[in-house]
Amino acid sequence: MKRTWPQLLEFVEATALDQVAANEGVDRAALAERVADGSVVLVGGHGRARPVGIGRGLRTKVNCNLGTSPDVCCIETELAKLRAAIEAGTDTVMDLSLGGDLHEARCAVREACDVPLGSVPLYEVGVGAVEAFGSLGDVPPEWFLEAVETHCRDGVDFVTVHCGVTKMSLERLRLEGRTTGVVSRGGSLVAHYIEATGRENPLYERYDELLAMLRQYDVAISIGDGLRPGAGVDATDRAQVAETIIIGELVDRAREAGVAAFVEGPGHMPLDQIAANVVLQKRLCHDAPFYVLGPLVTDVAPGYDHITGAIGGAVCAAAGADFLCDVTPAEHLSLPTERDIIDGVMASRIAAHAADLVKGVRGAAEWDARMSRARKALDWGRMADLALDRSKVDDARERGGGMGHEACSMCGRYCSMKVPLSAGRPGECR
Amino acid sequence: MKRTWPQLLEFVEATALDQVAANEGVDRAALAERVADGSVVLVGGHGRARPVGIGRGLRTKVNCNLGTSPDVCCIETELAKLRAAIEAGTDTVMDLSLGGDLHEARCAVREACDVPLGSVPLYEVGVGAVEAFGSLGDVPPEWFLEAVETHCRDGVDFVTVHCGVTKMSLERLRLEGRTTGVVSRGGSLVAHYIEATGRENPLYERYDELLAMLRQYDVAISIGDGLRPGAGVDATDRAQVAETIIIGELVDRAREAGVAAFVEGPGHMPLDQIAANVVLQKRLCHDAPFYVLGPLVTDVAPGYDHITGAIGGAVCAAAGADFLCDVTPAEHLSLPTERDIIDGVMASRIAAHAADLVKGVRGAAEWDARMSRARKALDWGRMADLALDRSKVDDARERGGGMGHEACSMCGRYCSMKVPLSAGRPGECR
Repeated sequence: MKRTWPQLLEFVEATALDQVAANEGVDRAALAERVADGSVVLVGGHGRARPVGIGRGLRTKVNCNLGTSPDVCCIETELAKLRAAIEAGTDTVMDLSLGGDLHEARCAVREACDVPLGSVPLYEVGVGAVEAFGSLGDVPPEWFLEAVETHCRDGVDFVTVHCGVTKMSLERLRLEGRTTGVVSRGGSLVAHYIEATGRENPLYERYDELLAMLRQYDVAISIGDGLRPGAGVDATDRAQVAETIIIGELVDRAREAGVAAFVEGPGHMPLDQIAANVVLQKRLCHDAPFYVLGPLVTDVAPGYDHITGAIGGAVCAAAGADFLCDVTPAEHLSLPTERDIIDGVMASRIAAHAADLVKGVRGAAEWDARMSRARKALDWGRMADLALDRSKVDDARERGGGMGHEACSMCGRYCSMKVPLSAGRPGECR
Repeated sequence: MKRTWPQLLEFVEATALDQVAANEGVDRAALAERVADGSVVLVGGHGRARPVGIGRGLRTKVNCNLGTSPDVCCIETELAKLRAAIEAGTDTVMDLSLGGDLHEARCAVREACDVPLGSVPLYEVGVGAVEAFGSLGDVPPEWFLEAVETHCRDGVDFVTVHCGVTKMSLERLRLEGRTTGVVSRGGSLVAHYIEATGRENPLYERYDELLAMLRQYDVAISIGDGLRPGAGVDATDRAQVAETIIIGELVDRAREAGVAAFVEGPGHMPLDQIAANVVLQKRLCHDAPFYVLGPLVTDVAPGYDHITGAIGGAVCAAAGADFLCDVTPAEHLSLPTERDIIDGVMASRIAAHAADLVKGVRGAAEWDARMSRARKALDWGRMADLALDRSKVDDARERGGGMGHEACSMCGRYCSMKVPLSAGRPGECR
């Protein structure tokens, strides 16, 4: 049966719904309602990428960023990171390549990637403009949408587009001032374009065309927060909130145009502002799924930002954020290594799961309870099976000298799990 | 001038007050009031150990656990961990040695330790009983207090004593049941003694004698939570809360006896129960400083429990906890290595500082603001100076190939910090 394009989209979406409902253990009809009202977005489901649901009532998802940089540019290395990220359990991947042949890098990642893939077409514009003119100020405005189309054609499942960086939101930034200014790479490119040319952001001016293009390729839009705070002291400032208001309006227009939309968020943020930011985003953006970077709860721990991000991510997701972008230990320091990528994904998965435990996500509490029963029974095989990262359990037991010890080397024969108590109910592992 | 013992205590306390007030940048008179009402405890200030203040209005403190185990027993290794922990910035240390000559280990740690040192005298009882009788059931009750006195004589600054594990609290455990039973090593020893002998916990029955002894040596009491939950599913259960009620009563009696008291807390706990537990502890224990282990917000991440603990610790300290016991990546797996110790201390310091930012602790926000200004100015030397762990910045810059690059290898020439924007105010580093 040959299907027309709209039929094909409907068919793909129906299949994706089935798969996501089955994977999450949620009711298909309820899920379909949420997709229809925009509080859940389905990404992937085309080509190699399995479909993933992001939003209300679903497991909190994790994205892993990778890609070349101008200084460290080797596609093979990035493909190794991609495999490591997928092995570590990331739900999606974004290719943020900035060095070498961007098209080649993106297509190589797409080819090797069986989870939904996102990208930031603006980087294409920035790199091209610097190469052609030495500056972004001179870039022809058509390039912005052309870059988006190139990425769609290359088969990405979602694109981050910084449409909310406008003359209006930048004016708020100028009036209030900031310690770290614009820290989003895409946001800073748009801001520089607007300042240098005096023109409006082409991605905002031509948003309807952008939406038609995304609809045509069935690519979801991740509306980037170009003015996110890059320092705790800049968090929840007027520029950030003004941009969120614009983003909210853009969410409505995306839904009207039949484009799945979710919204990106901070960034750097003190602990006590996180829950308020989730309320703000959910209200201003009419329940669009919230995709956050961190947030990092302190600025003083370079080398440990997977931890500062996991703290903020757990609190943010528990308050309602739906999708966590991983932060690696290399953040603020260098391009991440493969080990950094694994640590970043694991830290984000911990944050996501800690939140799912209190969001009442199906299966989350039972996973923990099973691990606790295995622990009580000192059943190391089962502990390894249930561990987020089984290699940690296997390695530790191996380092223990393969002595076949029942307890671990911390307490040995004084292991509290072994003390016979009537209430302890040892051996109750199921 | 020769001082009597009470005079000496007063002198030591006055000196400690001066030093702590100066270190924390708080008013000495206000601090003295808090020490008097018990909401702040001063530990250390004798011998080599610098005094440290723990409690309301002060910087959240971090403790590092170390010590030998029955299977991995080398005092030199533990001393290396001690140096690493102090270098990493721990505020206090606990020697939890369980293997080899415990007295020798303790004295070696004491000798090398210039921060306040704590210990768990019950381990002495447990190890001695197993050696002498093969079981804890047969231990003479006098041993419990004798062990505490031995530790006082060896010069520790605070002792964890599990006085709240009583027939009453254990009955609550028996009636409700639990997945992981009693997971505190000290708590499990007391619980086993009570079950095996039918007698009450000697540390509870003879609490007045215990207090007189601690007063004599000017050692603070850390009232251990022997019935803390060892699994998220066991958190905030009746046994835990019943024990906290008893601990609250014991705090009152310690204050009446002139013994500085603080209270230990969970353990394993879902994110949404943490703030409630802080309210509960602060109310039931009349504002005694709260010293928590984690809490770990999920059970499924062995190998990453410094992260699960940092998430819980940050949320707990932001809600009012005063003192975080570090959890290392080796928790639930093995005795920690030196690297594990450093990672555990750093993760706890991040959690403590993230909380201090929102507790309004003096200097916390300014530290972050200074780092953010250094970041904007791309001043790598200053970033290293301000970093929690400067080696991470130095190493990353070195790995960058010593190319003298201004930006890092993630974005290179596309570094958003370098984009010239009127609101960015680059170079504003002060």
